[in-house]
Amino acid sequence: MAKSYSELSPSIRTLMGPGPSSAHPRVLRAMTTPLVGYLDPDFFKVMEEVKELLRYVLQTTNELTIPVSGTGSAGMETCISNLVETDDEVLVCVNGYFGERMCEIVERYGGKVRRIETPWGKVTEPTLIDEALKSSRAKVVALVHAETSTGARQPLEEIGKIAHKNGALLLVDAVTSLGGHPVKADEWGIDACYSGSQKCLSCPPGISPVSFSKRAVEAVDSRKTKIGNWYLDMSLVAKYWSDEHTYHHTPPTSMIYALREALRLVQEEGLEARFKRHELNHRALVAGLDAMGIKMFVEEGSRLWSLNAACVPEGVDDARVRGRLLNEFNIEIGGGFGALKGKVWRIGLMGYSSSKNNVLMFLGALENVLTSEGYSLKPGAGVGAANSTYNE
Amino acid sequence: MAKSYSELSPSIRTLMGPGPSSAHPRVLRAMTTPLVGYLDPDFFKVMEEVKELLRYVLQTTNELTIPVSGTGSAGMETCISNLVETDDEVLVCVNGYFGERMCEIVERYGGKVRRIETPWGKVTEPTLIDEALKSSRAKVVALVHAETSTGARQPLEEIGKIAHKNGALLLVDAVTSLGGHPVKADEWGIDACYSGSQKCLSCPPGISPVSFSKRAVEAVDSRKTKIGNWYLDMSLVAKYWSDEHTYHHTPPTSMIYALREALRLVQEEGLEARFKRHELNHRALVAGLDAMGIKMFVEEGSRLWSLNAACVPEGVDDARVRGRLLNEFNIEIGGGFGALKGKVWRIGLMGYSSSKNNVLMFLGALENVLTSEGYSLKPGAGVGAANSTYNE
Repeated sequence: MAKSYSELSPSIRTLMGPGPSSAHPRVLRAMTTPLVGYLDPDFFKVMEEVKELLRYVLQTTNELTIPVSGTGSAGMETCISNLVETDDEVLVCVNGYFGERMCEIVERYGGKVRRIETPWGKVTEPTLIDEALKSSRAKVVALVHAETSTGARQPLEEIGKIAHKNGALLLVDAVTSLGGHPVKADEWGIDACYSGSQKCLSCPPGISPVSFSKRAVEAVDSRKTKIGNWYLDMSLVAKYWSDEHTYHHTPPTSMIYALREALRLVQEEGLEARFKRHELNHRALVAGLDAMGIKMFVEEGSRLWSLNAACVPEGVDDARVRGRLLNEFNIEIGGGFGALKGKVWRIGLMGYSSSKNNVLMFLGALENVLTSEGYSLKPGAGVGAANSTYNE
Repeated sequence: MAKSYSELSPSIRTLMGPGPSSAHPRVLRAMTTPLVGYLDPDFFKVMEEVKELLRYVLQTTNELTIPVSGTGSAGMETCISNLVETDDEVLVCVNGYFGERMCEIVERYGGKVRRIETPWGKVTEPTLIDEALKSSRAKVVALVHAETSTGARQPLEEIGKIAHKNGALLLVDAVTSLGGHPVKADEWGIDACYSGSQKCLSCPPGISPVSFSKRAVEAVDSRKTKIGNWYLDMSLVAKYWSDEHTYHHTPPTSMIYALREALRLVQEEGLEARFKRHELNHRALVAGLDAMGIKMFVEEGSRLWSLNAACVPEGVDDARVRGRLLNEFNIEIGGGFGALKGKVWRIGLMGYSSSKNNVLMFLGALENVLTSEGYSLKPGAGVGAANSTYNE
């Protein structure tokens, strides 16, 4: 093979899109730790620590709280494939791309999807879930806490009670919320929860926190058929992550090292301080965008702090602006999916990326690009408004 | 949360077990490269390079040659779940743990398993496959090139022809061979091949090279039912890895960086030189063990270079010896699985771990432990015999 390949040297970006967010330097450094075997006593210690730290971040005492060896989508498939058997009914709340994906995966495992549709950008009314459950035999209610495609935050406080009184389990996608927004797995009665590593945990993608309540574990144990998925079979994976340490598959050592460091950073900062930081930077960004005449897609009160969907102003070329931010400023933001294509920018302020510096830099860069694209702006208005928020 | 967690600092081991093997330092370093987004033009370039390098290592021109976002077991499940539909017959050659696993996964996807059983440590006779196919309607013949549980190497030269003339596809597990033994996907007529990153590629676990021939792609395209697995659905994953770059799931960026560097190291060394190195170190190890009165489990001619199964000498406590090697010398070797538990040591010489230094160090350490355990040995015989091989 004649071709030669140079040292890896991608551009150094500031990742402010829908994810991955920029990994914390300490997390990257943790990945250079030499490997140990998957049955090494030193690795068992790492596994225990990761489980403890995950329980802290998920605010749960669930015994079965582990990282699954894939990305957040594998976490989604873990929860669904373990809980859903052929002909099981699943009530899915759909108000964005990831709710749609849940329906798709439920069907792959033979489940019957019953949808509660809400327009993209809105959240599902708990009363609709209660009503739907009265006329169904749903085993699972599934919804997305933080819809990455729209920037909407689903309130979850009441839904666990509603699901449980109707005999259903509550399955929650916390991919874009965990580590940036409170995810109170126990208090909210979440039975199966999954997340990703590359959002508010500031770890590279490739590992997915998953937690099952006792109720969910019982549901898995009382299945009539084998789990349709072998790699994500929690009854087998859990044995490796228990004191038994029975081999199932080789865990992704370096990703587990990375996750441990990411979780350690969360713990050092403290959950409350971390949530406050995410909220403050979100508020400053919104104030800055507002001062530039740019509206948010989601109404106040339902907005995520971690993923901010802003409406592309009339007459502005979405893709061109994003391209210029990337090429001239090395800043990545995301475009819209599906019906929102060309309509919104998705601006992530996740974990390590959620900083005053990033907010001010981004607003400055956006002003630069929009102005030179002919969009009329009051100079410095965005940065000024953000700084007013910071100096409140 | 009051508990505090220290900086990650597992013991520094020399990994000479069944995998993971020690990652190359350059691979670990590549993982510190800052992340870019999954739609970043710079990442598309990395993806193209990884595909090219994978084709080089797999000796194939298969367009669909990509890393799957999970460990080698996810690679196995990718191949099976994409090729097997309910009631499809699959002929599985079983002569070790991983052949058994193939049967298990085929059944999860509704396939009918027809087994060709061969004792552990032996290889499957191609004539048996030919005979079995004559009386079957098997869609797939599945076997393990390098059985990690036994150390046996399955010859593959004839089997593709046998499968194809009987209208079946050839599915090969190359987890413990790729990068250490020739895997000639095209020449041998392999239709679906998967491997792991943490064996002879000296990359951490968490990413799995997979390659599908045109024949396999056609089989996927002509399925009657949707693929049972969403995360590993090659019809969707392939679209992201094509020029289309349609989002499916966020790829594990850092693991792809690591794999690229691992493959770059293979290419710099050259396949032939790399195979010779693996063979030489294997021969030296075997000579050393032989001089110490330790027999190999697999007969000469069928032995893997990458994974050496040695019979635990009569009267020697398997677990105790492995424990002392780990605790006193920081050397990890593996024990036996299932029927081989307590009977064999599995000594890996994979990728970066396949070195003269490791062979000599291991033989020296083994002599130390065995002697102090009361096993009678001629001092220095193992190291001497290995050096005779090196100095031939």
